[in-house]
Amino acid sequence: MRKIIECVPNFSEGKRKEVIDEIVNAVKETPGVRVLNISSDPSHNRSVLTMVGDDKGLKQAVLTLFEKAVSLIDLTKHKGEHPRMGAVDVVPFVPVKGVTMDDCIALSKEVGKEVGERFKIPVYLYEESATTAERKNLAKVRKGEFEGFFEKIKDPAWKPDFGPTEVHPTAGVVAIGAREFLIAFNVNLGTNDIEIANKIARAVRHISGGFRYVKALGMSLEDRGIVQVSMNLVNYKKTPIFRVVELIRAEARRYGVPVIGSEIVGLVPNDALLACADFYLQLEDFDPSQVIENRLEEEG
Amino acid sequence: MRKIIECVPNFSEGKRKEVIDEIVNAVKETPGVRVLNISSDPSHNRSVLTMVGDDKGLKQAVLTLFEKAVSLIDLTKHKGEHPRMGAVDVVPFVPVKGVTMDDCIALSKEVGKEVGERFKIPVYLYEESATTAERKNLAKVRKGEFEGFFEKIKDPAWKPDFGPTEVHPTAGVVAIGAREFLIAFNVNLGTNDIEIANKIARAVRHISGGFRYVKALGMSLEDRGIVQVSMNLVNYKKTPIFRVVELIRAEARRYGVPVIGSEIVGLVPNDALLACADFYLQLEDFDPSQVIENRLEEEG
Repeated sequence: MRKIIECVPNFSEGKRKEVIDEIVNAVKETPGVRVLNISSDPSHNRSVLTMVGDDKGLKQAVLTLFEKAVSLIDLTKHKGEHPRMGAVDVVPFVPVKGVTMDDCIALSKEVGKEVGERFKIPVYLYEESATTAERKNLAKVRKGEFEGFFEKIKDPAWKPDFGPTEVHPTAGVVAIGAREFLIAFNVNLGTNDIEIANKIARAVRHISGGFRYVKALGMSLEDRGIVQVSMNLVNYKKTPIFRVVELIRAEARRYGVPVIGSEIVGLVPNDALLACADFYLQLEDFDPSQVIENRLEEEG
Repeated sequence: MRKIIECVPNFSEGKRKEVIDEIVNAVKETPGVRVLNISSDPSHNRSVLTMVGDDKGLKQAVLTLFEKAVSLIDLTKHKGEHPRMGAVDVVPFVPVKGVTMDDCIALSKEVGKEVGERFKIPVYLYEESATTAERKNLAKVRKGEFEGFFEKIKDPAWKPDFGPTEVHPTAGVVAIGAREFLIAFNVNLGTNDIEIANKIARAVRHISGGFRYVKALGMSLEDRGIVQVSMNLVNYKKTPIFRVVELIRAEARRYGVPVIGSEIVGLVPNDALLACADFYLQLEDFDPSQVIENRLEEEG
Protein backbone atom coordinates (compact mmCIF):
# COMPACT_ATOMS: atom_id res chain seq x y z
CA MET A 1 0.00 0.00 0.00
CA ARG A 2 1.10 3.52 -0.72
CA LYS A 3 2.36 5.28 2.41
CA ILE A 4 0.80 8.64 3.19
CA ILE A 5 2.02 10.92 5.96
CA GLU A 6 0.64 14.40 6.47
CA CYS A 7 2.88 17.21 7.68
CA VAL A 8 1.47 20.58 8.79
CA PRO A 9 4.31 22.98 9.60
CA ASN A 10 3.41 26.41 11.00
CA PHE A 11 5.86 29.21 10.24
CA SER A 12 6.00 32.76 11.51
CA GLU A 13 5.15 34.85 8.46
CA GLY A 14 1.59 35.71 7.47
CA LYS A 15 1.98 39.15 5.88
CA ARG A 16 4.81 39.38 3.36
CA LYS A 17 3.43 37.54 0.35
CA GLU A 18 6.79 37.33 -1.44
CA VAL A 19 8.38 35.64 1.57
CA ILE A 20 5.50 33.17 1.93
CA ASP A 21 5.65 32.37 -1.80
CA GLU A 22 9.41 31.84 -1.78
CA ILE A 23 9.14 29.41 1.13
CA VAL A 24 6.16 27.50 -0.29
CA ASN A 25 7.56 27.32 -3.81
CA ALA A 26 10.82 25.85 -2.54
CA VAL A 27 8.91 23.21 -0.58
CA LYS A 28 6.68 22.40 -3.56
CA GLU A 29 9.67 21.34 -5.63
CA THR A 30 10.42 18.40 -3.35
CA PRO A 31 9.89 15.10 -5.18
CA GLY A 32 7.30 12.82 -3.55
CA VAL A 33 5.59 15.67 -1.70
CA ARG A 34 2.35 17.45 -2.50
CA VAL A 35 1.35 20.75 -0.96
CA LEU A 36 -2.40 20.54 -0.39
CA ASN A 37 -3.00 23.90 1.21
CA ILE A 38 -1.34 27.09 2.43
CA SER A 39 -3.27 29.28 4.80
CA SER A 40 -1.77 32.62 5.86
CA ASP A 41 -3.22 34.87 8.54
CA PRO A 42 -1.89 38.46 8.52
CA SER A 43 -3.12 39.32 12.04
CA HIS A 44 -1.57 36.14 13.40
CA ASN A 45 1.42 36.85 11.15
CA ARG A 46 1.65 33.12 10.63
CA SER A 47 1.14 30.53 7.87
CA VAL A 48 0.03 26.93 8.03
CA LEU A 49 1.28 24.65 5.27
CA THR A 50 -0.47 21.31 4.68
CA MET A 51 1.47 18.75 2.70
CA VAL A 52 1.52 15.00 2.25
CA GLY A 53 4.11 12.53 1.11
CA ASP A 54 6.22 9.61 2.20
CA ASP A 55 8.86 9.80 4.94
CA LYS A 56 11.81 10.54 2.65
CA GLY A 57 10.01 13.26 0.73
CA LEU A 58 8.66 14.99 3.81
CA LYS A 59 12.03 14.96 5.54
CA GLN A 60 13.53 16.75 2.56
CA ALA A 61 10.60 19.17 2.35
CA VAL A 62 10.87 20.12 6.03
CA LEU A 63 14.63 20.70 5.76
CA THR A 64 14.02 22.93 2.74
CA LEU A 65 11.37 24.78 4.72
CA PHE A 66 13.84 25.43 7.54
CA GLU A 67 16.53 26.58 5.15
CA LYS A 68 14.23 29.17 3.62
CA ALA A 69 12.52 30.22 6.85
CA VAL A 70 15.80 30.70 8.73
CA SER A 71 17.15 32.94 5.98
CA LEU A 72 13.93 34.97 5.47
CA ILE A 73 12.31 35.29 8.93
CA ASP A 74 13.78 37.25 11.84
CA LEU A 75 11.82 36.71 15.03
CA THR A 76 13.42 39.72 16.72
CA LYS A 77 11.30 41.80 14.32
CA HIS A 78 8.18 39.56 14.31
CA LYS A 79 4.86 40.67 15.75
CA GLY A 80 1.56 38.80 15.59
CA GLU A 81 -1.42 37.80 17.69
CA HIS A 82 -0.59 34.09 17.68
CA PRO A 83 1.99 32.86 20.22
CA ARG A 84 5.20 31.69 18.54
CA MET A 85 8.69 30.61 19.51
CA GLY A 86 10.39 29.92 16.17
CA ALA A 87 10.70 31.02 12.55
CA VAL A 88 9.41 27.54 11.91
CA ASP A 89 7.25 27.24 14.99
CA VAL A 90 5.88 23.71 15.01
CA VAL A 91 6.17 20.65 12.72
CA PRO A 92 3.69 17.81 13.29
CA PHE A 93 3.83 14.53 11.37
CA VAL A 94 0.51 12.70 11.06
CA PRO A 95 -0.08 9.08 9.97
CA VAL A 96 -2.74 8.91 7.25
CA LYS A 97 -2.41 5.62 5.42
CA GLY A 98 -0.09 2.64 5.45
CA VAL A 99 2.02 4.06 8.29
CA THR A 100 1.82 3.81 12.07
CA MET A 101 2.16 6.42 14.78
CA ASP A 102 5.51 4.83 15.61
CA ASP A 103 6.69 5.47 12.06
CA CYS A 104 5.78 9.14 12.46
CA ILE A 105 7.49 9.37 15.86
CA ALA A 106 10.66 7.91 14.33
CA LEU A 107 10.44 10.39 11.44
CA SER A 108 9.98 13.34 13.81
CA LYS A 109 13.12 12.33 15.73
CA GLU A 110 15.15 11.88 12.57
CA VAL A 111 14.08 15.27 11.27
CA GLY A 112 14.53 16.90 14.69
CA LYS A 113 18.08 15.63 15.00
CA GLU A 114 19.01 16.97 11.57
CA VAL A 115 17.35 20.35 12.16
CA GLY A 116 19.25 20.75 15.42
CA GLU A 117 22.59 19.87 13.86
CA ARG A 118 22.29 21.60 10.52
CA PHE A 119 20.52 24.83 11.50
CA LYS A 120 21.68 25.16 15.14
CA ILE A 121 18.09 25.43 16.31
CA PRO A 122 17.02 23.87 19.65
CA VAL A 123 14.37 21.21 19.01
CA TYR A 124 11.65 20.06 21.43
CA LEU A 125 9.89 16.81 20.67
CA TYR A 126 6.19 17.21 21.48
CA GLU A 127 2.88 15.30 21.48
CA GLU A 128 3.39 11.59 20.77
CA SER A 129 7.14 12.14 20.34
CA ALA A 130 7.58 13.94 23.67
CA THR A 131 10.33 12.76 26.04
CA THR A 132 8.64 14.19 29.16
CA ALA A 133 4.99 14.50 30.17
CA GLU A 134 5.14 18.31 30.09
CA ARG A 135 6.44 18.38 26.52
CA LYS A 136 3.41 16.51 25.23
CA ASN A 137 1.48 19.77 25.44
CA LEU A 138 2.51 22.27 22.77
CA ALA A 139 1.15 25.23 24.78
CA LYS A 140 3.43 24.35 27.69
CA VAL A 141 6.44 24.00 25.41
CA ARG A 142 5.72 27.35 23.76
CA LYS A 143 5.02 29.22 27.00
CA GLY A 144 7.22 32.33 27.22
CA GLU A 145 7.47 32.45 23.43
CA PHE A 146 10.59 33.44 21.49
CA GLU A 147 11.48 36.30 23.84
CA GLY A 148 11.15 34.18 26.99
CA PHE A 149 13.12 31.21 25.67
CA PHE A 150 16.51 32.86 26.21
CA GLU A 151 15.86 32.34 29.95
CA LYS A 152 13.62 29.25 29.78
CA ILE A 153 16.23 27.21 27.91
CA LYS A 154 18.62 27.50 30.89
CA ASP A 155 16.18 25.50 33.05
CA PRO A 156 17.32 21.84 32.99
CA ALA A 157 13.64 20.85 32.61
CA TRP A 158 13.72 22.63 29.25
CA LYS A 159 16.97 21.32 27.85
CA PRO A 160 16.25 20.73 24.15
CA ASP A 161 15.94 17.18 22.79
CA PHE A 162 18.20 18.02 19.86
CA GLY A 163 20.41 20.90 18.79
CA PRO A 164 22.28 23.51 20.83
CA THR A 165 21.30 24.65 24.31
CA GLU A 166 21.21 28.22 23.07
CA VAL A 167 18.27 29.83 21.30
CA HIS A 168 18.93 30.61 17.64
CA PRO A 169 19.24 34.42 17.61
CA THR A 170 16.71 35.01 14.81
CA ALA A 171 14.98 31.62 14.26
CA GLY A 172 14.29 30.77 17.93
CA VAL A 173 13.37 27.20 18.82
CA VAL A 174 10.97 24.65 17.31
CA ALA A 175 8.60 21.89 18.38
CA ILE A 176 8.66 18.77 16.19
CA GLY A 177 6.53 15.73 16.83
CA ALA A 178 3.95 13.20 15.77
CA ARG A 179 0.24 13.41 16.45
CA GLU A 180 -3.02 11.95 15.24
CA PHE A 181 -4.97 13.59 12.45
CA LEU A 182 -6.95 16.57 13.69
CA ILE A 183 -10.48 16.92 12.33
CA ALA A 184 -12.09 20.34 12.65
CA PHE A 185 -15.75 19.45 13.08
CA ASN A 186 -18.74 21.65 13.95
CA VAL A 187 -22.30 20.70 14.81
CA ASN A 188 -25.02 23.29 14.16
CA LEU A 189 -28.01 23.63 16.46
CA GLY A 190 -31.49 24.91 15.65
CA THR A 191 -31.43 27.71 18.23
CA ASN A 192 -29.81 31.11 18.68
CA ASP A 193 -29.20 30.45 22.38
CA ILE A 194 -25.42 30.48 22.87
CA GLU A 195 -25.82 29.09 26.37
CA ILE A 196 -27.13 25.82 24.95
CA ALA A 197 -24.10 25.55 22.66
CA ASN A 198 -21.82 26.30 25.60
CA LYS A 199 -23.49 23.69 27.80
CA ILE A 200 -23.23 21.04 25.09
CA ALA A 201 -19.61 21.98 24.41
CA ARG A 202 -18.87 21.42 28.10
CA ALA A 203 -20.61 18.04 27.96
CA VAL A 204 -18.50 16.73 25.06
CA ARG A 205 -15.07 18.20 25.74
CA HIS A 206 -12.32 16.53 27.70
CA ILE A 207 -11.42 19.42 29.96
CA SER A 208 -14.86 19.50 31.61
CA GLY A 209 -15.52 15.76 31.80
CA GLY A 210 -16.36 14.79 28.23
CA PHE A 211 -14.57 12.72 25.61
CA ARG A 212 -10.84 12.40 25.98
CA TYR A 213 -9.95 13.58 22.46
CA VAL A 214 -12.43 16.43 21.98
CA LYS A 215 -11.84 20.15 22.34
CA ALA A 216 -15.05 22.18 22.07
CA LEU A 217 -16.45 25.70 22.30
CA GLY A 218 -19.89 27.23 21.82
CA MET A 219 -20.01 29.73 18.93
CA SER A 220 -22.70 32.04 17.51
CA LEU A 221 -23.24 32.05 13.75
CA GLU A 222 -24.81 35.52 13.69
CA ASP A 223 -25.60 35.54 9.97
CA ARG A 224 -27.62 32.33 10.22
CA GLY A 225 -29.15 33.12 13.61
CA ILE A 226 -27.98 29.81 15.03
CA VAL A 227 -25.32 28.50 17.37
CA GLN A 228 -22.69 25.85 16.89
CA VAL A 229 -20.59 23.44 18.90
CA SER A 230 -17.18 24.06 17.32
CA MET A 231 -14.70 21.23 17.88
CA ASN A 232 -11.30 19.81 17.26
CA LEU A 233 -11.36 16.02 17.23
CA VAL A 234 -7.73 15.25 18.04
CA ASN A 235 -7.92 11.46 17.82
CA TYR A 236 -10.77 10.26 15.63
CA LYS A 237 -9.74 6.65 16.10
CA LYS A 238 -10.33 6.72 19.85
CA THR A 239 -13.11 9.30 19.93
CA PRO A 240 -14.89 8.76 16.61
CA ILE A 241 -17.05 11.37 14.88
CA PHE A 242 -20.30 9.41 15.17
CA ARG A 243 -19.99 9.08 18.94
CA VAL A 244 -19.52 12.82 19.31
CA VAL A 245 -22.52 13.50 17.06
CA GLU A 246 -24.75 11.07 18.94
CA LEU A 247 -23.83 12.60 22.30
CA ILE A 248 -24.57 16.08 20.99
CA ARG A 249 -27.92 14.89 19.61
CA ALA A 250 -28.82 13.43 23.01
CA GLU A 251 -27.77 16.58 24.88
CA ALA A 252 -29.56 18.85 22.39
CA ARG A 253 -32.79 16.82 22.79
CA ARG A 254 -32.62 17.56 26.49
CA TYR A 255 -33.12 21.25 25.56
CA GLY A 256 -35.68 20.49 22.85
CA VAL A 257 -33.20 21.67 20.24
CA PRO A 258 -32.52 19.82 16.97
CA VAL A 259 -29.15 19.21 15.34
CA ILE A 260 -29.63 20.91 11.98
CA GLY A 261 -26.33 20.06 10.36
CA SER A 262 -22.62 19.54 10.76
CA GLU A 263 -19.48 20.66 8.98
CA ILE A 264 -16.07 19.20 8.34
CA VAL A 265 -13.66 22.10 7.99
CA GLY A 266 -10.78 21.22 5.72
CA LEU A 267 -9.60 17.68 5.25
CA VAL A 268 -10.71 14.37 6.70
CA PRO A 269 -9.24 10.86 6.37
CA ASN A 270 -11.43 8.45 4.45
CA ASP A 271 -11.51 5.91 7.27
CA ALA A 272 -12.97 8.48 9.69
CA LEU A 273 -16.06 8.63 7.44
CA LEU A 274 -16.13 4.89 6.72
CA ALA A 275 -16.35 4.38 10.49
CA CYS A 276 -19.51 6.53 10.51
CA ALA A 277 -21.10 4.53 7.68
CA ASP A 278 -20.18 1.33 9.53
CA PHE A 279 -21.78 2.58 12.76
CA TYR A 280 -25.02 3.94 11.33
CA LEU A 281 -25.63 1.05 8.94
CA GLN A 282 -24.92 -1.36 11.83
CA LEU A 283 -22.61 -3.31 9.53
CA GLU A 284 -21.60 -6.76 10.73
CA ASP A 285 -17.97 -7.76 10.15
CA PHE A 286 -17.26 -4.88 7.82
CA ASP A 287 -13.76 -5.13 6.38
CA PRO A 288 -12.26 -1.98 4.80
CA SER A 289 -10.82 -4.17 2.05
CA GLN A 290 -14.41 -4.57 0.82
CA VAL A 291 -14.10 -1.00 -0.43
CA ILE A 292 -12.96 -1.31 -4.02
CA GLU A 293 -10.51 1.58 -3.79
CA ASN A 294 -8.83 0.01 -0.76
CA ARG A 295 -8.64 -3.37 -2.47
CA LEU A 296 -6.79 -1.80 -5.36
CA GLU A 297 -4.34 -0.09 -3.01
CA GLU A 298 -3.62 -3.35 -1.21
CA GLU A 299 -2.86 -5.23 -4.34
CA GLY A 300 -1.03 -2.33 -5.99
CA MET B 1 -7.72 10.89 -11.65
CA ARG B 2 -7.07 7.22 -12.22
CA LYS B 3 -9.86 5.57 -14.23
CA ILE B 4 -11.40 2.47 -12.70
CA ILE B 5 -13.92 0.27 -14.50
CA GLU B 6 -15.15 -2.99 -13.06
CA CYS B 7 -15.94 -5.93 -15.33
CA VAL B 8 -17.73 -9.04 -14.03
CA PRO B 9 -17.91 -11.68 -16.77
CA ASN B 10 -19.84 -14.89 -16.07
CA PHE B 11 -18.68 -17.97 -17.92
CA SER B 12 -20.19 -21.43 -18.16
CA GLU B 13 -17.74 -23.62 -16.29
CA GLY B 14 -17.92 -24.17 -12.53
CA LYS B 15 -16.65 -27.73 -12.17
CA ARG B 16 -13.46 -28.44 -14.08
CA LYS B 17 -10.79 -26.70 -12.00
CA GLU B 18 -8.11 -26.97 -14.67
CA VAL B 19 -10.33 -25.23 -17.22
CA ILE B 20 -11.26 -22.45 -14.80
CA ASP B 21 -7.61 -21.95 -13.88
CA GLU B 22 -6.48 -21.83 -17.50
CA ILE B 23 -9.09 -19.17 -18.30
CA VAL B 24 -8.41 -17.07 -15.21
CA ASN B 25 -4.63 -17.29 -15.50
CA ALA B 26 -4.76 -16.09 -19.10
CA VAL B 27 -6.93 -13.13 -18.09
CA LYS B 28 -4.65 -12.30 -15.14
CA GLU B 29 -1.71 -11.73 -17.45
CA THR B 30 -3.37 -8.72 -19.09
CA PRO B 31 -1.43 -5.52 -18.30
CA GLY B 32 -3.52 -2.85 -16.53
CA VAL B 33 -6.06 -5.37 -15.23
CA ARG B 34 -6.43 -6.84 -11.76
CA VAL B 35 -8.51 -9.90 -11.00
CA LEU B 36 -10.12 -9.24 -7.61
CA ASN B 37 -12.14 -12.40 -7.26
CA ILE B 38 -13.13 -15.66 -8.94
CA SER B 39 -16.17 -17.45 -7.63
CA SER B 40 -17.07 -20.86 -9.10
CA ASP B 41 -20.27 -22.74 -8.34
CA PRO B 42 -20.22 -26.46 -9.29
CA SER B 43 -24.01 -26.92 -9.10
CA HIS B 44 -24.54 -23.84 -11.25
CA ASN B 45 -21.60 -25.02 -13.37
CA ARG B 46 -20.68 -21.38 -13.73
CA SER B 47 -17.94 -18.95 -12.63
CA VAL B 48 -18.05 -15.24 -11.92
CA LEU B 49 -14.84 -13.31 -12.47
CA THR B 50 -14.45 -9.87 -10.91
CA MET B 51 -11.76 -7.66 -12.36
CA VAL B 52 -10.93 -3.97 -12.58
CA GLY B 53 -8.85 -1.89 -14.91
CA ASP B 54 -8.99 0.85 -17.49
CA ASP B 55 -10.85 0.59 -20.80
CA LYS B 56 -7.88 -0.65 -22.85
CA GLY B 57 -6.84 -3.29 -20.34
CA LEU B 58 -10.34 -4.64 -19.84
CA LYS B 59 -11.01 -4.86 -23.57
CA GLN B 60 -7.91 -6.99 -23.95
CA ALA B 61 -8.80 -9.10 -20.89
CA VAL B 62 -12.32 -9.80 -22.19
CA LEU B 63 -11.02 -10.80 -25.63
CA THR B 64 -8.56 -13.16 -23.95
CA LEU B 65 -11.40 -14.58 -21.87
CA PHE B 66 -13.43 -15.29 -25.03
CA GLU B 67 -10.47 -16.88 -26.78
CA LYS B 68 -9.94 -19.32 -23.91
CA ALA B 69 -13.62 -19.95 -23.17
CA VAL B 70 -14.50 -20.64 -26.82
CA SER B 71 -11.73 -23.21 -27.10
CA LEU B 72 -12.37 -24.89 -23.71
CA ILE B 73 -16.15 -24.80 -23.20
CA ASP B 74 -18.69 -26.71 -25.28
CA LEU B 75 -22.26 -25.72 -24.43
CA THR B 76 -23.69 -28.77 -26.21
CA LYS B 77 -22.23 -30.75 -23.31
CA HIS B 78 -22.90 -28.22 -20.53
CA LYS B 79 -25.34 -28.85 -17.70
CA GLY B 80 -25.97 -26.66 -14.64
CA GLU B 81 -28.73 -25.19 -12.54
CA HIS B 82 -28.14 -21.60 -13.62
CA PRO B 83 -29.67 -20.48 -16.94
CA ARG B 84 -27.01 -19.80 -19.61
CA MET B 85 -26.81 -19.03 -23.30
CA GLY B 86 -23.08 -18.76 -23.96
CA ALA B 87 -19.65 -20.13 -23.07
CA VAL B 88 -19.07 -16.58 -21.95
CA ASP B 89 -22.61 -15.83 -20.82
CA VAL B 90 -22.68 -12.18 -19.83
CA VAL B 91 -20.12 -9.37 -19.66
CA PRO B 92 -21.08 -6.23 -17.71
CA PHE B 93 -18.88 -3.11 -17.54
CA VAL B 94 -19.38 -0.97 -14.44
CA PRO B 95 -18.17 2.61 -13.87
CA VAL B 96 -16.32 2.87 -10.52
CA LYS B 97 -14.13 5.96 -10.56
CA GLY B 98 -13.20 8.69 -13.03
CA VAL B 99 -15.43 7.24 -15.78
CA THR B 100 -19.07 7.78 -16.73
CA MET B 101 -21.81 5.35 -17.63
CA ASP B 102 -21.49 6.63 -21.22
CA ASP B 103 -17.81 5.62 -21.21
CA CYS B 104 -18.83 2.10 -20.17
CA ILE B 105 -21.59 1.93 -22.78
CA ALA B 106 -19.06 2.93 -25.45
CA LEU B 107 -16.63 0.29 -24.18
CA SER B 108 -19.31 -2.42 -24.22
CA LYS B 109 -20.12 -1.63 -27.85
CA GLU B 110 -16.48 -1.62 -28.89
CA VAL B 111 -15.89 -4.96 -27.20
CA GLY B 112 -19.19 -6.38 -28.52
CA LYS B 113 -18.32 -5.51 -32.10
CA GLU B 114 -14.92 -7.15 -31.84
CA VAL B 115 -16.29 -10.29 -30.15
CA GLY B 116 -18.88 -10.66 -32.91
CA GLU B 117 -16.34 -10.26 -35.68
CA ARG B 118 -13.42 -12.16 -34.24
CA PHE B 119 -15.19 -15.12 -32.61
CA LYS B 120 -18.33 -15.34 -34.77
CA ILE B 121 -20.52 -15.13 -31.69
CA PRO B 122 -23.86 -13.23 -31.80
CA VAL B 123 -23.76 -10.35 -29.29
CA TYR B 124 -26.74 -8.75 -27.53
CA LEU B 125 -26.21 -5.38 -25.91
CA TYR B 126 -28.10 -5.33 -22.59
CA GLU B 127 -28.87 -3.07 -19.59
CA GLU B 128 -27.68 0.52 -20.18
CA SER B 129 -26.21 -0.47 -23.55
CA ALA B 130 -29.46 -2.07 -24.84
CA THR B 131 -30.79 -1.02 -28.24
CA THR B 132 -34.39 -2.05 -27.46
CA ALA B 133 -36.44 -1.88 -24.26
CA GLU B 134 -36.69 -5.69 -24.06
CA ARG B 135 -32.93 -6.15 -24.22
CA LYS B 136 -32.39 -4.05 -21.11
CA ASN B 137 -33.49 -7.07 -19.10
CA LEU B 138 -30.91 -9.86 -19.07
CA ALA B 139 -33.50 -12.50 -18.12
CA LYS B 140 -35.52 -11.66 -21.24
CA VAL B 141 -32.44 -11.81 -23.43
CA ARG B 142 -31.41 -15.16 -21.98
CA LYS B 143 -34.88 -16.71 -22.15
CA GLY B 144 -34.76 -20.03 -24.05
CA GLU B 145 -31.09 -20.43 -23.15
CA PHE B 146 -28.44 -21.90 -25.44
CA GLU B 147 -30.69 -24.66 -26.76
CA GLY B 148 -33.58 -22.31 -27.56
CA PHE B 149 -31.46 -19.67 -29.30
CA PHE B 150 -31.15 -21.64 -32.53
CA GLU B 151 -34.86 -20.79 -33.07
CA LYS B 152 -35.03 -17.49 -31.15
CA ILE B 153 -32.29 -15.87 -33.24
CA LYS B 154 -34.44 -16.20 -36.37
CA ASP B 155 -37.02 -13.82 -34.85
CA PRO B 156 -36.27 -10.30 -36.23
CA ALA B 157 -36.88 -8.95 -32.71
CA TRP B 158 -33.83 -10.96 -31.61
CA LYS B 159 -31.43 -10.12 -34.40
CA PRO B 160 -28.06 -9.71 -32.65
CA ASP B 161 -26.51 -6.25 -32.24
CA PHE B 162 -23.16 -7.53 -33.45
CA GLY B 163 -21.77 -10.70 -34.98
CA PRO B 164 -23.40 -13.36 -37.16
CA THR B 165 -27.13 -14.16 -37.19
CA GLU B 166 -26.32 -17.76 -36.43
CA VAL B 167 -25.66 -19.16 -32.99
CA HIS B 168 -22.05 -20.26 -32.46
CA PRO B 169 -22.31 -24.08 -32.44
CA THR B 170 -20.43 -24.57 -29.15
CA ALA B 171 -20.08 -21.09 -27.63
CA GLY B 172 -23.68 -19.90 -28.11
CA VAL B 173 -24.46 -16.20 -27.80
CA VAL B 174 -23.48 -13.51 -25.28
CA ALA B 175 -24.89 -10.44 -23.57
CA ILE B 176 -22.50 -7.51 -23.21
CA GLY B 177 -23.43 -4.21 -21.66
CA ALA B 178 -22.92 -1.51 -19.08
CA ARG B 179 -24.65 -1.26 -15.74
CA GLU B 180 -24.30 0.47 -12.40
CA PHE B 181 -22.37 -1.13 -9.59
CA LEU B 182 -24.43 -3.78 -7.84
CA ILE B 183 -24.20 -3.85 -4.05
CA ALA B 184 -25.30 -7.07 -2.35
CA PHE B 185 -26.70 -5.76 0.93
CA ASN B 186 -28.59 -7.58 3.69
CA VAL B 187 -30.35 -6.21 6.75
CA ASN B 188 -30.78 -8.55 9.73
CA LEU B 189 -33.87 -8.41 11.92
CA GLY B 190 -34.22 -9.38 15.57
CA THR B 191 -36.93 -11.97 14.96
CA ASN B 192 -37.23 -15.47 13.55
CA ASP B 193 -40.54 -14.63 11.82
CA ILE B 194 -39.90 -15.01 8.08
CA GLU B 195 -43.21 -13.33 7.31
CA ILE B 196 -41.92 -10.05 8.73
CA ALA B 197 -38.82 -10.26 6.51
CA ASN B 198 -41.05 -11.01 3.53
CA LYS B 199 -43.34 -8.08 4.25
CA ILE B 200 -40.43 -5.69 4.61
CA ALA B 201 -38.83 -7.06 1.45
CA ARG B 202 -42.07 -6.30 -0.39
CA ALA B 203 -42.10 -2.77 1.05
CA VAL B 204 -38.61 -1.90 -0.20
CA ARG B 205 -38.40 -3.68 -3.54
CA HIS B 206 -39.32 -2.15 -6.88
CA ILE B 207 -41.51 -4.95 -8.18
CA SER B 208 -44.06 -4.57 -5.39
CA GLY B 209 -44.09 -0.76 -5.10
CA GLY B 210 -40.82 0.03 -3.31
CA PHE B 211 -37.62 1.70 -4.41
CA ARG B 212 -36.85 1.67 -8.10
CA TYR B 213 -33.38 0.16 -7.80
CA VAL B 214 -33.90 -2.45 -5.10
CA LYS B 215 -34.44 -6.18 -5.47
CA ALA B 216 -35.32 -7.90 -2.19
CA LEU B 217 -36.28 -11.22 -0.64
CA GLY B 218 -36.97 -12.42 2.88
CA MET B 219 -34.52 -15.09 4.05
CA SER B 220 -34.16 -17.22 7.18
CA LEU B 221 -30.76 -17.47 8.84
CA GLU B 222 -31.50 -20.74 10.59
CA ASP B 223 -28.19 -20.97 12.45
CA ARG B 224 -28.67 -17.54 14.04
CA GLY B 225 -32.43 -17.93 14.58
CA ILE B 226 -33.12 -14.65 12.80
CA VAL B 227 -34.44 -13.44 9.45
CA GLN B 228 -32.95 -11.14 6.89
CA VAL B 229 -34.01 -8.81 4.12
CA SER B 230 -31.60 -9.88 1.39
CA MET B 231 -31.13 -7.29 -1.35
CA ASN B 232 -29.41 -6.27 -4.52
CA LEU B 233 -29.03 -2.51 -4.75
CA VAL B 234 -28.68 -2.06 -8.49
CA ASN B 235 -28.14 1.70 -8.53
CA TYR B 236 -26.76 3.03 -5.27
CA LYS B 237 -26.54 6.54 -6.66
CA LYS B 238 -30.30 6.81 -7.20
CA THR B 239 -31.45 4.53 -4.38
CA PRO B 240 -28.75 5.02 -1.74
CA ILE B 241 -27.96 2.52 1.03
CA PHE B 242 -29.00 4.82 3.89
CA ARG B 243 -32.46 5.39 2.45
CA VAL B 244 -33.05 1.66 2.18
CA VAL B 245 -31.84 1.13 5.76
CA GLU B 246 -34.03 3.90 7.13
CA LEU B 247 -37.12 2.54 5.38
CA ILE B 248 -36.42 -0.94 6.73
CA ARG B 249 -35.95 0.48 10.24
CA ALA B 250 -39.31 2.27 9.97
CA GLU B 251 -41.09 -0.82 8.66
CA ALA B 252 -39.48 -3.06 11.28
CA ARG B 253 -40.59 -0.70 14.07
CA ARG B 254 -44.14 -1.20 12.88
CA TYR B 255 -43.76 -4.87 13.90
CA GLY B 256 -41.85 -4.05 17.08
CA VAL B 257 -38.75 -5.65 15.59
CA PRO B 258 -35.26 -4.13 15.76
CA VAL B 259 -32.68 -3.99 13.00
CA ILE B 260 -29.79 -5.87 14.59
CA GLY B 261 -27.22 -5.50 11.85
CA SER B 262 -26.48 -5.32 8.16
CA GLU B 263 -23.99 -6.89 5.79
CA ILE B 264 -22.24 -5.84 2.64
CA VAL B 265 -21.51 -8.99 0.66
CA GLY B 266 -18.42 -8.55 -1.48
CA LEU B 267 -17.28 -5.20 -2.74
CA VAL B 268 -18.65 -1.69 -2.36
CA PRO B 269 -17.56 1.60 -3.93
CA ASN B 270 -16.12 4.08 -1.44
CA ASP B 271 -18.58 6.82 -2.41
CA ALA B 272 -21.56 4.60 -1.54
CA LEU B 273 -20.33 4.58 2.07
CA LEU B 274 -19.28 8.25 2.09
CA ALA B 275 -22.88 9.07 1.14
CA CYS B 276 -24.03 7.25 4.30
CA ALA B 277 -21.61 9.19 6.51
CA ASP B 278 -22.79 12.42 4.86
CA PHE B 279 -26.44 11.57 5.50
CA TYR B 280 -26.16 10.44 9.11
CA LEU B 281 -23.77 13.19 10.19
CA GLN B 282 -26.06 15.74 8.47
CA LEU B 283 -23.00 17.26 6.82
CA GLU B 284 -23.50 20.68 5.26
CA ASP B 285 -21.78 21.27 1.90
CA PHE B 286 -19.66 18.16 2.12
CA ASP B 287 -17.25 17.96 -0.78
CA PRO B 288 -15.65 14.56 -1.52
CA SER B 289 -12.39 16.37 -2.24
CA GLN B 290 -12.20 17.04 1.51
CA VAL B 291 -11.30 13.38 1.85
CA ILE B 292 -7.51 13.28 1.82
CA GLU B 293 -7.33 10.18 -0.35
CA ASN B 294 -9.56 11.81 -2.99
CA ARG B 295 -7.53 15.01 -2.91
CA LEU B 296 -4.40 13.03 -3.69
CA GLU B 297 -6.10 11.28 -6.60
CA GLU B 298 -7.25 14.59 -8.06
CA GLU B 299 -3.83 16.13 -7.97
CA GLY B 300 -2.08 12.94 -9.01
